[in-house]
Amino acid sequence: MRDAYHEQLDSVGHTLVEMAGLVGQALSRATRALLEADLAVAEAVIAADDAVDALHRELDVRTLDLMARQQPVAGDLRTLVTSLRMSADLERMGDLARHIAKIARMRYPDYAIPEDLRATITRMGEIGVDLAARLAGIIEGKDVTDAQTLDAEDDAVDLLHRTIFEKLLRHDEPYPVETAIDVTLLSRYYERYADHAVSVAKRLIFLVTGEH
Amino acid sequence: MRDAYHEQLDSVGHTLVEMAGLVGQALSRATRALLEADLAVAEAVIAADDAVDALHRELDVRTLDLMARQQPVAGDLRTLVTSLRMSADLERMGDLARHIAKIARMRYPDYAIPEDLRATITRMGEIGVDLAARLAGIIEGKDVTDAQTLDAEDDAVDLLHRTIFEKLLRHDEPYPVETAIDVTLLSRYYERYADHAVSVAKRLIFLVTGEH
Repeated sequence: MRDAYHEQLDSVGHTLVEMAGLVGQALSRATRALLEADLAVAEAVIAADDAVDALHRELDVRTLDLMARQQPVAGDLRTLVTSLRMSADLERMGDLARHIAKIARMRYPDYAIPEDLRATITRMGEIGVDLAARLAGIIEGKDVTDAQTLDAEDDAVDLLHRTIFEKLLRHDEPYPVETAIDVTLLSRYYERYADHAVSVAKRLIFLVTGEH
Repeated sequence: MRDAYHEQLDSVGHTLVEMAGLVGQALSRATRALLEADLAVAEAVIAADDAVDALHRELDVRTLDLMARQQPVAGDLRTLVTSLRMSADLERMGDLARHIAKIARMRYPDYAIPEDLRATITRMGEIGVDLAARLAGIIEGKDVTDAQTLDAEDDAVDLLHRTIFEKLLRHDEPYPVETAIDVTLLSRYYERYADHAVSVAKRLIFLVTGEH
């Protein structure tokens, strides 16, 4: 049987898994709002981010409290500090999904993404959602093997990010400046989302193996 | 006389002050590289960011070690956790200055910023540099009063960020897409730099007062 202290340690991990689920769902829906110019979905994503922020704050309080009251041994302390950092990354992923939804809302009823960039943005969204889903499993199972493969997906997002710029620049009929601004910010948000996902995976690897 | 433990606690603070100094200098020089299309300065900023990253990593190791070995009391523990977070913000500010320098380098010998946006970018740079300089003093002196005024400067940067978009959109002769992309990213980097500066100040306020 687990004692109360170890149950509290476990529950920190459960909250992180829950956050990964929520920010994955947020990115999935934000991408749909963007591609389908769906105002209701955009609004829902924006509103739902409060729940992620609340989990983040609540996990902070709980973790700091555990550290102060329980004087955890070195290994548990490292777990708690790492959890604080993962939570910060996940919270930021939620913010980035919200930023994407806000651009969808701002352009509604128009589409923020021109036709010939839809496939690239769709792909960036799919990879981001996949990263978040895998993070949940990686955190849950302390799965270093899967965590180590996330870099490859991040590279794919970075490549798509560069592709977007090339497509913007080489389009026969120059895009309006508004489109260039929107697409630049959106692509940046997807890229940063993937960066933070990889950051969570790297923290897990460091926690388990002690190696960067 | 301070014992070794308290000297180590103090030295964490000194490192944060040093980092604030370095990232302020980085932003100052990155802005110069951008406005004067100065390749040598851009290269220097990019190279110098390694020192900030090294301080960040080294402070991490030192802080985690202090936590594990000294079992700090609640107040000291909160100081150490907050220091880790401030260090992460400062490290990110260094990254953002480096991103700005990289755009200057990429466009060299051309100017990345068109003539009529120079004044706005200059101002964003000045505010960012001022924020970093004040952070050094705020961390050094645990100066809550000054920390509380940083939000106003951040609001000024947010306003300039929106101004940039309006100027991009309303220019008589549409800007090239390349300019729109560069300026959008640059403005975003300055805005995020200021966000992280405010984040450091807020962490200090919370550390001293216990209030968000």
